[in-house]
Amino acid sequence: MEKVCRGLYIGRFQPYHRGHSQVLQVIAEKVDEIIIGIGSAQQSHQTNNPFTAGERVLMVSQAVEKLNVKTYIIPIEDIHRNSLWVSHVKSLTPPFQVVYSNNPLVMELFCEAGIKVGGTPLFNREKYSGKRIRELMQTDKKWKDLVPKSVARVIDEIDGVDRLKHIAKTDDS
Amino acid sequence: MEKVCRGLYIGRFQPYHRGHSQVLQVIAEKVDEIIIGIGSAQQSHQTNNPFTAGERVLMVSQAVEKLNVKTYIIPIEDIHRNSLWVSHVKSLTPPFQVVYSNNPLVMELFCEAGIKVGGTPLFNREKYSGKRIRELMQTDKKWKDLVPKSVARVIDEIDGVDRLKHIAKTDDS
Amino acid sequence: MEKVCRGLYIGRFQPYHRGHSQVLQVIAEKVDEIIIGIGSAQQSHQTNNPFTAGERVLMVSQAVEKLNVKTYIIPIEDIHRNSLWVSHVKSLTPPFQVVYSNNPLVMELFCEAGIKVGGTPLFNREKYSGKRIRELMQTDKKWKDLVPKSVARVIDEIDGVDRLKHIAKTDDS
Amino acid sequence: MEKVCRGLYIGRFQPYHRGHSQVLQVIAEKVDEIIIGIGSAQQSHQTNNPFTAGERVLMVSQAVEKLNVKTYIIPIEDIHRNSLWVSHVKSLTPPFQVVYSNNPLVMELFCEAGIKVGGTPLFNREKYSGKRIRELMQTDKKWKDLVPKSVARVIDEIDGVDRLKHIAKTDDS
Amino acid sequence: MEKVCRGLYIGRFQPYHRGHSQVLQVIAEKVDEIIIGIGSAQQSHQTNNPFTAGERVLMVSQAVEKLNVKTYIIPIEDIHRNSLWVSHVKSLTPPFQVVYSNNPLVMELFCEAGIKVGGTPLFNREKYSGKRIRELMQTDKKWKDLVPKSVARVIDEIDGVDRLKHIAKTDDS
Amino acid sequence: MEKVCRGLYIGRFQPYHRGHSQVLQVIAEKVDEIIIGIGSAQQSHQTNNPFTAGERVLMVSQAVEKLNVKTYIIPIEDIHRNSLWVSHVKSLTPPFQVVYSNNPLVMELFCEAGIKVGGTPLFNREKYSGKRIRELMQTDKKWKDLVPKSVARVIDEIDGVDRLKHIAKTDDS
Repeated sequence: MEKVCRGLYIGRFQPYHRGHSQVLQVIAEKVDEIIIGIGSAQQSHQTNNPFTAGERVLMVSQAVEKLNVKTYIIPIEDIHRNSLWVSHVKSLTPPFQVVYSNNPLVMELFCEAGIKVGGTPLFNREKYSGKRIRELMQTDKKWKDLVPKSVARVIDEIDGVDRLKHIAKTDDS
Repeated sequence: MEKVCRGLYIGRFQPYHRGHSQVLQVIAEKVDEIIIGIGSAQQSHQTNNPFTAGERVLMVSQAVEKLNVKTYIIPIEDIHRNSLWVSHVKSLTPPFQVVYSNNPLVMELFCEAGIKVGGTPLFNREKYSGKRIRELMQTDKKWKDLVPKSVARVIDEIDGVDRLKHIAKTDDS
Repeated sequence: MEKVCRGLYIGRFQPYHRGHSQVLQVIAEKVDEIIIGIGSAQQSHQTNNPFTAGERVLMVSQAVEKLNVKTYIIPIEDIHRNSLWVSHVKSLTPPFQVVYSNNPLVMELFCEAGIKVGGTPLFNREKYSGKRIRELMQTDKKWKDLVPKSVARVIDEIDGVDRLKHIAKTDDS
Repeated sequence: MEKVCRGLYIGRFQPYHRGHSQVLQVIAEKVDEIIIGIGSAQQSHQTNNPFTAGERVLMVSQAVEKLNVKTYIIPIEDIHRNSLWVSHVKSLTPPFQVVYSNNPLVMELFCEAGIKVGGTPLFNREKYSGKRIRELMQTDKKWKDLVPKSVARVIDEIDGVDRLKHIAKTDDS
Repeated sequence: MEKVCRGLYIGRFQPYHRGHSQVLQVIAEKVDEIIIGIGSAQQSHQTNNPFTAGERVLMVSQAVEKLNVKTYIIPIEDIHRNSLWVSHVKSLTPPFQVVYSNNPLVMELFCEAGIKVGGTPLFNREKYSGKRIRELMQTDKKWKDLVPKSVARVIDEIDGVDRLKHIAKTDDS
Repeated sequence: MEKVCRGLYIGRFQPYHRGHSQVLQVIAEKVDEIIIGIGSAQQSHQTNNPFTAGERVLMVSQAVEKLNVKTYIIPIEDIHRNSLWVSHVKSLTPPFQVVYSNNPLVMELFCEAGIKVGGTPLFNREKYSGKRIRELMQTDKKWKDLVPKSVARVIDEIDGVDRLKHIAKTDDS
């Protein structure tokens, strides 16, 4: 096991999109196995977190089938205590040697824990962004080109766009 | 029991007002028994949630005495996981056949769970709104006409307006 | 409201039985209104907690219809911190002046909080006991005489005895 | 997606053993894809739950590589509320049509939720049992024949037997 | 013990600054012993809560060494239920007779619980404010004069300013 | 700060007794400062955890006044996830270099986290044991010789023995 080099990549994947694919392809060239952590796993049915962890597992698992490295797809619930988060992630995942992230908080936490952090490759963040895709969905604009075909199919089958539109109508009172 | 038709109506009731009464009167004509869920039960002493669950139980229970159907008044704590919320509500309440709500998230969640959702009748939302009543209270304006007399009495006896004014002074630092 | 004297009575009601009825009848002569707290509300589908809070609300609400005092039936989740438990109960219930209990921990906690505790009247505890009734159910013996008729009907309609027998087969591994 | 038949199999896998393999081989002939839920995911470093969820993900993922169906390996934390557990599991997993279990509580909960439950095939439970394997480990007896070779390797590499022996010395005071 | 008069003072101390020192000096003249509660103890690595409870214990304990009264420094996690918060604080601290606070919510909650609340003495809030100090740190401006020397040393040794700058780069997506 | 050597010692202190004093005296000769963690801080009013965290802070703080090293007394709530416990403790305490414990689980967890663990010196465990002292209290036998005088005084003033006797009468039903 020691000889297997594993990298961790964490995202919310609301939804999984082609930007994620580009990152994973680059990581796949650097490590033997990739652990994909699905963050905020307990959240769903919110405008910025419309899909359940299980639905996101399905999206990711279909999208990564083409990668030629072994992957582990692990839902990770928020723990709301930054000082415990690294231990939380480590307890739920196989051992890993490097974390790939551009999120400053994630980088800081793993760095303070003495774990190597590699930046993720750049991709077109203007174009590929969960936030933007959710907005396109809500406003009935074209979004399918931005995600892998298998992901679009998952979203269709769970009526994901309708769900998002419905819950977006909620306001506070 | 199967023959009893129960309807569920959930609100935060911060505070209970005449708009709620109008809705309950209409529901009372459609079902045999009404379950009234007091949402965000764990919250209190906040500007948008000033009253405890117990105080709200008292308000609601006095206000619904005139309805000629049996009522159940059940505090329901937030669970912060939308995908578990329907099960949470069901575990705390007698069996029900229909949910009355105009809240899009509530409608979506019960709908996905295969439970019938009926819209609530319209009432004057500009006039009757918890938010508006709390603002009137904070600014020493007239609010008592907007709630049943028994509710105004409860709020007086717990010094509710004073509490609201005090906590409204809190700011972050 | 000050003039209304309310008493609190807390039980798990797994299930509600005739011993509970005897206690409530005595309390009903002493106070104007009774708050009935359904303890361990979050528990169900266990051999010592087979019924959900909602099912127990239904049992209790039907059984207390004959009492000629107003009742409030409030599910109360365990909080696993004894030092917070009295505040927890108070936040979920209308104000009360006296607690009726024979449970030493409950008595100690309310007593330390400066709240008056009255003992509950004696009844035949050998005969009327939730534990005994659950054992009778599991072993196909006669139990219906020990609970009010309306409670037996609720248990029948939710297939409560079958549920209890099924879950009792669970063992650890 | 509708056409894919998925089955769910949940265990604690403390550790994964050859009895689990036998069950999975039989399930693999009945469904297109298997979701393997790792129960009590939050537990570790206990005599009856020595391994972390991540360590168990590693054991299971290596052991199921020979199965010729797609697998999803999902850590599932305990939720301590039986009435929410089915929703909890469903929120973390891709959609499934059938659950394989011999655990009476699991069977009851999924059954009440209207989900099909298939019994798991019989295997030699005297011989293959997590409890027995943990006892063999603690007492320095032979246990490696009872688990797949890849699992024994994982346990060796994390010094699993030493961990188990150490924590077993804890007593209460 | 009855004769010892203890006062409670609660703050987040993100970070501890000279305004806090001024308050504590005044309180020290009024009571025999001071309990210093470190609020939001579970938070850290956030722009408005950069330091862990342990780091804040260290800051406070060094800063109060000059006070000539005994002090207790107690981390207090948020409980997210205002109606339980006073009991929560009381369960974690030695008995106290008076609370010093200018926070309206804290004052309201202790007041409703029948506990004496004393206002804290005025100090220059424009100058001494955790929020302002954190902003100075983030923008590389002078902040060390605003905190005791021992506190500046603690922050230097844990690389506190760097941590704050890193996590401040996080944005949502 | 780097030059200060701090040691951590964790106990439940139900109650603090002379065995603890002996251990702390030995540790005090080895380190510059001692952090005393009060474990299971959220527990109280139980036969094996009768005293609140705050009451135990009081006992410990009076007992350690004679030690000639600086002490930090920190309540530590249980977290029910062994794999996060070390991070939990570290987040609540000033930095430490060594842990003193004879508890096998505590030793294993800190050891796996790469933190130095020193055994605690032997003392007469037959004589000095929280469990034994609680039993002596319950049965009205002599216990005061087993704890420091200041601790006996604290227990007297909070009516600790009466509390213990009352709650010990609780049984399950």
